[in-house]
Amino acid sequence: MKTNKGRLTVPTDVDVIEDTLRIIDLWGADAIRDCDGTNMPKELSDLDVKQYATYYTTRKDNAWATAHPEEIQQMYLMSDFMTASTSTLRIPLMKHYYEKQLKVNTIDDISRWWEVIDRTSGDIIPYGQWLYEEECGEVVIQEAIPFHAYTVSFLAFVIWDPVHMYNAITNDWKDEEHQMTYDVRQPKTQAYVLAKLRSWCKEHPEVDVIRYTTFFHQFTLMFNEEAKEKFVDWFGYSASVSPYILEQFEKEVGYKFRPEYIISQGYHNSTFCVPTKEYKDFMNFQMREVAKLVKQFVDITHEEGKEAMMFLGDHWIGTEPFGPYFKDLGIDAVVGSVGNGTTLRLISDIPGVKYTEGRFLPYFFPDVFCEGGDPIQEAKVNWVTARRAILRSPLDRIGYGGYLKLALQFPDFVEYITHVCDEFRELYDHVHGAKPYCMPFKVTILNAWGKVRSWGTHMVAHALWYKEIYSYSGVLEALSGMPFDVSFISFDDILEDPHVLDDAGVIINAGDAYTAYSGGEYWADPRIIEAMRRFVYNGGGFIGVGEPTAYQRNGHFFQLYDVLGVDKELGFSLSTDKYNWEEKEHFLTENFAETIDFGEEVKNIYALNGTTVLKDDRHNIMFAANTYGKGRSVYLRGLPFSFENARLLYRCLFYAAGKEDEIKTWYSENPNVEVNVYPNTQSYCVVNNTYEEQTTTVYTDRESYALTLAATEIRWFSIK
Amino acid sequence: MKTNKGRLTVPTDVDVIEDTLRIIDLWGADAIRDCDGTNMPKELSDLDVKQYATYYTTRKDNAWATAHPEEIQQMYLMSDFMTASTSTLRIPLMKHYYEKQLKVNTIDDISRWWEVIDRTSGDIIPYGQWLYEEECGEVVIQEAIPFHAYTVSFLAFVIWDPVHMYNAITNDWKDEEHQMTYDVRQPKTQAYVLAKLRSWCKEHPEVDVIRYTTFFHQFTLMFNEEAKEKFVDWFGYSASVSPYILEQFEKEVGYKFRPEYIISQGYHNSTFCVPTKEYKDFMNFQMREVAKLVKQFVDITHEEGKEAMMFLGDHWIGTEPFGPYFKDLGIDAVVGSVGNGTTLRLISDIPGVKYTEGRFLPYFFPDVFCEGGDPIQEAKVNWVTARRAILRSPLDRIGYGGYLKLALQFPDFVEYITHVCDEFRELYDHVHGAKPYCMPFKVTILNAWGKVRSWGTHMVAHALWYKEIYSYSGVLEALSGMPFDVSFISFDDILEDPHVLDDAGVIINAGDAYTAYSGGEYWADPRIIEAMRRFVYNGGGFIGVGEPTAYQRNGHFFQLYDVLGVDKELGFSLSTDKYNWEEKEHFLTENFAETIDFGEEVKNIYALNGTTVLKDDRHNIMFAANTYGKGRSVYLRGLPFSFENARLLYRCLFYAAGKEDEIKTWYSENPNVEVNVYPNTQSYCVVNNTYEEQTTTVYTDRESYALTLAATEIRWFSIK
Repeated sequence: MKTNKGRLTVPTDVDVIEDTLRIIDLWGADAIRDCDGTNMPKELSDLDVKQYATYYTTRKDNAWATAHPEEIQQMYLMSDFMTASTSTLRIPLMKHYYEKQLKVNTIDDISRWWEVIDRTSGDIIPYGQWLYEEECGEVVIQEAIPFHAYTVSFLAFVIWDPVHMYNAITNDWKDEEHQMTYDVRQPKTQAYVLAKLRSWCKEHPEVDVIRYTTFFHQFTLMFNEEAKEKFVDWFGYSASVSPYILEQFEKEVGYKFRPEYIISQGYHNSTFCVPTKEYKDFMNFQMREVAKLVKQFVDITHEEGKEAMMFLGDHWIGTEPFGPYFKDLGIDAVVGSVGNGTTLRLISDIPGVKYTEGRFLPYFFPDVFCEGGDPIQEAKVNWVTARRAILRSPLDRIGYGGYLKLALQFPDFVEYITHVCDEFRELYDHVHGAKPYCMPFKVTILNAWGKVRSWGTHMVAHALWYKEIYSYSGVLEALSGMPFDVSFISFDDILEDPHVLDDAGVIINAGDAYTAYSGGEYWADPRIIEAMRRFVYNGGGFIGVGEPTAYQRNGHFFQLYDVLGVDKELGFSLSTDKYNWEEKEHFLTENFAETIDFGEEVKNIYALNGTTVLKDDRHNIMFAANTYGKGRSVYLRGLPFSFENARLLYRCLFYAAGKEDEIKTWYSENPNVEVNVYPNTQSYCVVNNTYEEQTTTVYTDRESYALTLAATEIRWFSIK
Repeated sequence: MKTNKGRLTVPTDVDVIEDTLRIIDLWGADAIRDCDGTNMPKELSDLDVKQYATYYTTRKDNAWATAHPEEIQQMYLMSDFMTASTSTLRIPLMKHYYEKQLKVNTIDDISRWWEVIDRTSGDIIPYGQWLYEEECGEVVIQEAIPFHAYTVSFLAFVIWDPVHMYNAITNDWKDEEHQMTYDVRQPKTQAYVLAKLRSWCKEHPEVDVIRYTTFFHQFTLMFNEEAKEKFVDWFGYSASVSPYILEQFEKEVGYKFRPEYIISQGYHNSTFCVPTKEYKDFMNFQMREVAKLVKQFVDITHEEGKEAMMFLGDHWIGTEPFGPYFKDLGIDAVVGSVGNGTTLRLISDIPGVKYTEGRFLPYFFPDVFCEGGDPIQEAKVNWVTARRAILRSPLDRIGYGGYLKLALQFPDFVEYITHVCDEFRELYDHVHGAKPYCMPFKVTILNAWGKVRSWGTHMVAHALWYKEIYSYSGVLEALSGMPFDVSFISFDDILEDPHVLDDAGVIINAGDAYTAYSGGEYWADPRIIEAMRRFVYNGGGFIGVGEPTAYQRNGHFFQLYDVLGVDKELGFSLSTDKYNWEEKEHFLTENFAETIDFGEEVKNIYALNGTTVLKDDRHNIMFAANTYGKGRSVYLRGLPFSFENARLLYRCLFYAAGKEDEIKTWYSENPNVEVNVYPNTQSYCVVNNTYEEQTTTVYTDRESYALTLAATEIRWFSIK
């Protein structure tokens, strides 16, 4: 019998009852859960552990869906771009879509809700000049302009829930009935689902926690004709639409809805697109309306004596935890998948909930738990990566998901997880209620999204690696485990009140040109430029990563060229000789690790006169520093995550803040080792982030000493 | 005494009279010339060789310049970008300019000809809200908006001719009086200079050829405060301005001139900027007016029994040989510097002259002819590179420039040049009057400049290497020696008459996004897109290099995404899964050389469905092929010049033209060896482009055979 137990949720199923008991004991679990594709064994009902039940508000009831086809969920889709070669153009809507997932909606007025666009001229083609031939599934344009390309934006019913489909395919479920998704926002379904929840609660007294998986609107996820993922945007609102909702939206905002507000230029308004006013209006409308309805579910849950836990993912659109409505919903807990430190903070920083739970990786699915799979390695990386962030902002619980049966086939894995669970609890005892010390200046991420996407920048599909984002994601991942008060602001925040910058210390703008993360057209607004220049001039710090402040206008690409001291040569100023290429010695490159990797190439960055060039790669400046008035700036080409790179960013932050003399306080000389301080518990810890022994010199606020830590060791000290 | 002589011009000077005679004999020269900084010896007047005299219409007469300061040439300059931190901003105009080269023009009305621009808002600041304090050389803005950046566009007198200055600095001339440049377009100077030419001709009966170096307007060339090059645009019109000229221009076009037509956004309207309507208007006005005046000089030259030769460079602005006015000027000859095959074609393809002459490299200047210098190596590279182009479009003469004295100190060089001169004459005998066979489809370069910049694309400073251009320059360099009829068209040509594409075979669009070479905003014009799609659809070929057809709009970056089958991911479609990465076997990669180099990285190019991926570099597609209707396209990331890359382009051209079955006609298996055919002389040659022996298989139009050629050998054959 373990003395150190609790704060852990494990999955179970009807075929692993005995094993569940063993695992509960071994890992010290205090909660069990079912999953999509598993069932909670009745035999475990009386156990002295909490029972979580996954609850799907929108699926697992095909009878209802079939009976109410008009209330099945819908998604805005766009056809392929089709180029006319004659004056008649036929556009097969479902080409390259998966017909078992999506079905064209012809119930609602297509002349109102569809949009055919000439994507060569940008013109809308009025209904009548195009028609839909349902029998062949094609839109026909009779007077197309030859060699113009056209698209059709149309509504489709989601006849197979994308997550159910993903799970079915990943787990190779045979003969599984495809779960349809109904739209809880619509009146009949809403009444039905609320009533059903009420009766379900009554039928399931054994359930302590309803794990909503999730609420109403799935993030955008479409499959292609081969049932492979075609489009994924973890933040996308494309599947949150229906004429019912859109009519309400129109009434509220006072302008006519256009499909183009969702499918803008053929880009589904992904989180990388600078959001238009209309998209922001729609998001706000949805967040508010979703919040109202979530509140009803939460209230029923509470009335029935249960807790409401929200899964951060799947049908989470509109429930953004850092959005304006979430904290008042009364949701008890949020659980989410922890892919790394960033996604841990995405959960652990959520305001207004009683507790948070992180579902650690790997998920017990056969893609990892198979011959040749290495679940321990995945777990190890997951754990040390997440641990850095836990030391800053702890989750209250951890857990695992999937088929326990699969994990049991890997005894070494089971053993390793025992250790993880113990360490998590030990760690939690130290940091729970302890407020970690933050260095004496704030770090602010500036992008087009701000607070609502706190810890959720540069993501396509949750924490997945993409070539185009890893150079930026490293910035947030590094910050997730650093002793800073990190906040997220948007350009709109600055426009609303430039004083939002008053208490900022170092502002970071990181992203590819014209994306929501660097800011695009916001940098054409003089008010933004003024505010940012003023901030740095008066002593603030600025770090630009990749193509920061990029917007080709008025003779410069980087609109804060003078602050950054670098710009990107697009050809237009190629005639201007550039002499500043020589790398200089600098605080920022002291003990510069050879393994420092600036990520993806950003071409033709050059330094202006007076800028300190730190690293140049064949006349692509990768790293530079500049002073501006009383302030300072740093340019970084990119910062893929590594401990060395995290250390480099740490140095950049102190330099930009003008506080490089203070860096060696609560500091470890070895970048694989970090120090965290908890003043209210008069303690600090030194943590080895690697699976090898590490030796370092530790600096407290008054002394320094040598220390050797075993692999992954955390050592705790009292502050003298 | 050589039997094979002529077609060669050598430099002379008063201190190398005997040596000149020896070199004339050794190299077989039939003309001698002076240069900037040398003098023609009287003793050589009676020689039976032509005498060229450099003639400067705009300088070498400081007495005149000093007496007429208002007619000294002017240049539009822009001050540094200066950011205001309070409401008063002082902008020192000449900061970072060389005060010995340029002097602020306060003679002309600054309120009319200067422009102060808020480069943060884009607003023009009216005169009165800014003033110029001449004593300190600063423009003062009294009510600047804090943290906006401002620039001043102003006129400056060119008080030291940039070429004279360059020559003086390069040759370390001591105590040389700085030659001022007067503006021959202005009335007093014009009358004076024309009269002076007349009397000069009468005073110099020994001169056969007046080598105008050059006419009236210097390409843009400015130096910084350290007398180092600050800005160079070999095509730039910034130094062709004066209020006198601009007032005429205003009258003609009917709108008010703005300095911003020259200094657009702080970019001096370099040849990389897509030219605005106003800039094109100004160029056309200048070309026409310059032509009128050049005609007067040519007429006097002819009346005085001499030939008029124009140097292609220096004060050549307005005399563009491929422009609309040049061919009617009556100029006898053009001489220009041959940096490579491309710049050779820039001369040898000029229409409307009796002969062309290439000044080969190296110039006999102390930067190469010094201890440690390797003039032979430079000459060798220069010769074989140029020779490829001569075989397609021969120059009529070659020549050298600089100080003969310096060359004489390198006897091996003198010996090597003997060989070059002999080989040139042998070659000329073969190809002069012979029309080289062109493969049965045309190659067309499409950009914003078209014909006027034939063989002059992607250049900053004549043939100098720049990181940002070498990946594109290789395309023209390869073409300069290929058996194709190459033409250059502009987007305006297509807009004027899409039938300009009717006889095109393969169209090439090569360049960085938004530059004049890829086309920028022209790709937002549906008429361009229609015409190009139609062309390929009906069987044409298209080759895109770098960021072809790039303009972010309507859901795509490459506007001919469907033709090219590739696009660039900017982030907005990152949510769309991309599966087409696997390299396929293809005609284009048969015998693919490992040394193939696609040049500078172009990030995040991906292939659309159905496109054939040929080479991928970590998910940056470098090379791909596609079919479109009856036509075909090829995407190349870049094509730095090499013989392997030239061969690759050759294959791409045949593939795009749908004629890959015909490639092995007049063909060499070994890419270091090329074949040129001259049907009207019933001959062909096989040429080894390297300094090593090469073995190859040669394909005529009916047979193939093995052949070994000595280093650099050209072997001539009769067609059976």
